[in-house]
Amino acid sequence: MRMYDIIKKKRDGSALSKEEIDFFIKGYVDGSIPDYQASAFCMAVFYSGMTEEETANLTLSMAHSGDTVDLSRFGTLSADKHSTGGVGDKTTLIVAPICASLGCVMAKMSGRGLGHTGGTIDKLESIEGFNTSLSPDEFFNQVEKTGIAVVGQTGNLTPADKKLYALRDVTATVDSLPLIASSIMSKKLAAGAHNIVLDVKCGSGAFMKTPEDAEALATDMVKIGKMCGRNTAAVITNMNRPLGNNIGNALEVQEAMDVLKNSGPEDLKEVCLALATEIVSSTKGTSREEASNLTKDSLKSGKAYDKFMEWVKAQGATQNELSFKKADYTHDVISETDGYIVSSDAEKIGISAVILGAGREKKEDTIDMSAGIILNKKTVDKVNKGDVIATLYSCNKNSFESAEKQFLDALEFSENEPTNEPLIYTVVK
Amino acid sequence: MRMYDIIKKKRDGSALSKEEIDFFIKGYVDGSIPDYQASAFCMAVFYSGMTEEETANLTLSMAHSGDTVDLSRFGTLSADKHSTGGVGDKTTLIVAPICASLGCVMAKMSGRGLGHTGGTIDKLESIEGFNTSLSPDEFFNQVEKTGIAVVGQTGNLTPADKKLYALRDVTATVDSLPLIASSIMSKKLAAGAHNIVLDVKCGSGAFMKTPEDAEALATDMVKIGKMCGRNTAAVITNMNRPLGNNIGNALEVQEAMDVLKNSGPEDLKEVCLALATEIVSSTKGTSREEASNLTKDSLKSGKAYDKFMEWVKAQGATQNELSFKKADYTHDVISETDGYIVSSDAEKIGISAVILGAGREKKEDTIDMSAGIILNKKTVDKVNKGDVIATLYSCNKNSFESAEKQFLDALEFSENEPTNEPLIYTVVK
Repeated sequence: MRMYDIIKKKRDGSALSKEEIDFFIKGYVDGSIPDYQASAFCMAVFYSGMTEEETANLTLSMAHSGDTVDLSRFGTLSADKHSTGGVGDKTTLIVAPICASLGCVMAKMSGRGLGHTGGTIDKLESIEGFNTSLSPDEFFNQVEKTGIAVVGQTGNLTPADKKLYALRDVTATVDSLPLIASSIMSKKLAAGAHNIVLDVKCGSGAFMKTPEDAEALATDMVKIGKMCGRNTAAVITNMNRPLGNNIGNALEVQEAMDVLKNSGPEDLKEVCLALATEIVSSTKGTSREEASNLTKDSLKSGKAYDKFMEWVKAQGATQNELSFKKADYTHDVISETDGYIVSSDAEKIGISAVILGAGREKKEDTIDMSAGIILNKKTVDKVNKGDVIATLYSCNKNSFESAEKQFLDALEFSENEPTNEPLIYTVVK
Repeated sequence: MRMYDIIKKKRDGSALSKEEIDFFIKGYVDGSIPDYQASAFCMAVFYSGMTEEETANLTLSMAHSGDTVDLSRFGTLSADKHSTGGVGDKTTLIVAPICASLGCVMAKMSGRGLGHTGGTIDKLESIEGFNTSLSPDEFFNQVEKTGIAVVGQTGNLTPADKKLYALRDVTATVDSLPLIASSIMSKKLAAGAHNIVLDVKCGSGAFMKTPEDAEALATDMVKIGKMCGRNTAAVITNMNRPLGNNIGNALEVQEAMDVLKNSGPEDLKEVCLALATEIVSSTKGTSREEASNLTKDSLKSGKAYDKFMEWVKAQGATQNELSFKKADYTHDVISETDGYIVSSDAEKIGISAVILGAGREKKEDTIDMSAGIILNKKTVDKVNKGDVIATLYSCNKNSFESAEKQFLDALEFSENEPTNEPLIYTVVK
């Protein structure tokens, strides 16, 4: 078998066999297939696409290219949630304890933030003492005791995906549906959960800009998951505006805790309940209606909050009542106009938060855990001249001018009341 | 400017500016743009194509990526002939002296053979004493004195094309019209001739399999040449069967000399006269009819043959009457059937000659100058059982069995007389 022939076959629009895909992934990881052949291959896939079977085979091949997490001791109770990335997306902090409080096993690996989207691991590290690097034994012990643990990625998980994604990132071959779907799903397969629920974000702050594109990706990923023997579902949610009102690590944990106390912003709560409902119904085999009632009860009864506190303490949180470092400076963004907000572009607001210190432009940047934005008004809200639209938080006073400019650039106003967009577009099962 | 953006722009079907193409070529040659970006780019070009302007800019950029030959001292009289490669293609050995005998300046660089196609430089080296590595001074002195010199490629000509072609060869991105056209034409531009005539081969033994594909390539190349200020024309010729009857280096020189004596096979003579006619008409500004008469006269009068002898002696040939080393062994291929030959696949016959020692499978292989094939019968000829179809020549007796098998595999027979295909399809000007 020669990589040349595999590139040519894909280039000419034919479907590759499992053996050909395995040959490519194995060779690319062991270095016998060079980057220049892999990038030509990815570009051919960009144009020629892949069948469902090819995409599933590519996913499996990448999933098995390195270590895998064995959650078989938890039977079919293990569950994972994955978000394709958004701004103000603190759903894991809420969904995981809700589901764990209902008997799902949430043994999860999460990532760090880069660019305008944040990462769960960064958010958790704003909790004093929280340890995101458990050893495998510590991880499994905690999961067996509490039903929940969230750690940073450890071990050599999906090296094929890591290497291939880095290559795609510099060769304009990222935006290919089968390559995106297989990249995400290979990591989920390797992470071992039997039940997978995907939060596919859609809108200005997301990779997928339209509900149609998001649904196409969701459909592909759900098919892959099922073909690989996992219960898989996807919820397509709105990311034209940030989710909830708080953006920035410590600010987001505090907002997540509000929701866990059955308070907090309605949009965030609604998305979390939708995701938790899918996980619980998939894992426990209950009807969606029953699962929905269970998850709401978990919030109302305080079980979810208790599970959250049990979790963060098990994982090292030193305080009984969590408190968070406050930013040294705050700055109010004041409306200079009367009218309705018709757009609060999530990506631009995310970048504004990065300017304040809440995120990273490059991998090696450090984060100001206290930095971020609290939105007082967002899309569809009415504002009057002089209203506080948002408050910016930072330990770097000099960042306010540029962050405010970036923030205001995200907003569009109109005299007419806009119609609200759906928060949840659809569920793909 | 970033290569990433250039790949993405091409990927999304937009035309690149001259600056963007120059940035790519310059960066690829100096190593700042890695192979993996160049191969993704080539695959994007494979699918998205290039406009005429882009292709011309790419050609110019590659032509100027290294040394160029300055033939300006010869005004508009310098002429070059290029063949896209075939089997039994010894036209340079005939066309160059015809044209030089008529006042065209044939200062030419040629290549060596690889795979099933031979190379002019190898053929010339079967002449005792012939020196294919002249210094620039020797080269120009000889051209000024005799009007003709043919040398191997020297200097650092079109390094961009060399590097890019090697990459395309292993990434399944060779068969892209703008990439093929710019590769060929960049070398012709760098070689400096004011008049360029392309022999675009078409058929089983050529890169282009159909007259339509060959015409598309010819049209692109002629447009590029003209956009870059060179008189350019292309003749599309048949390569479903070998050209002439002799295949193999010394055998081909002898056949070329037959044609130069106004004898030899008609098909070879016809193609050579067509090519020479285009060169003479382009270089001297005469009508095609007049040029055609001039070239025929050159053969008839012996002027072309005299020019050939003047040339090879100027370039080192030691004998007054050239004689050639004979192969140690010969082997007749006998027909086992009665009927018409309906196909003598040029590529397969070329490979048979390589097996006999006449060509190289790898660059570092050595050549048996005496090895090759003389066809006694080829497409459209009638054969009877027991006829000698061809004679194989080699210094390696053991090669005959495999070479004969390969040779016979190239032939197809039929009871019915086939219609002859055109030898020259069309001229693109």
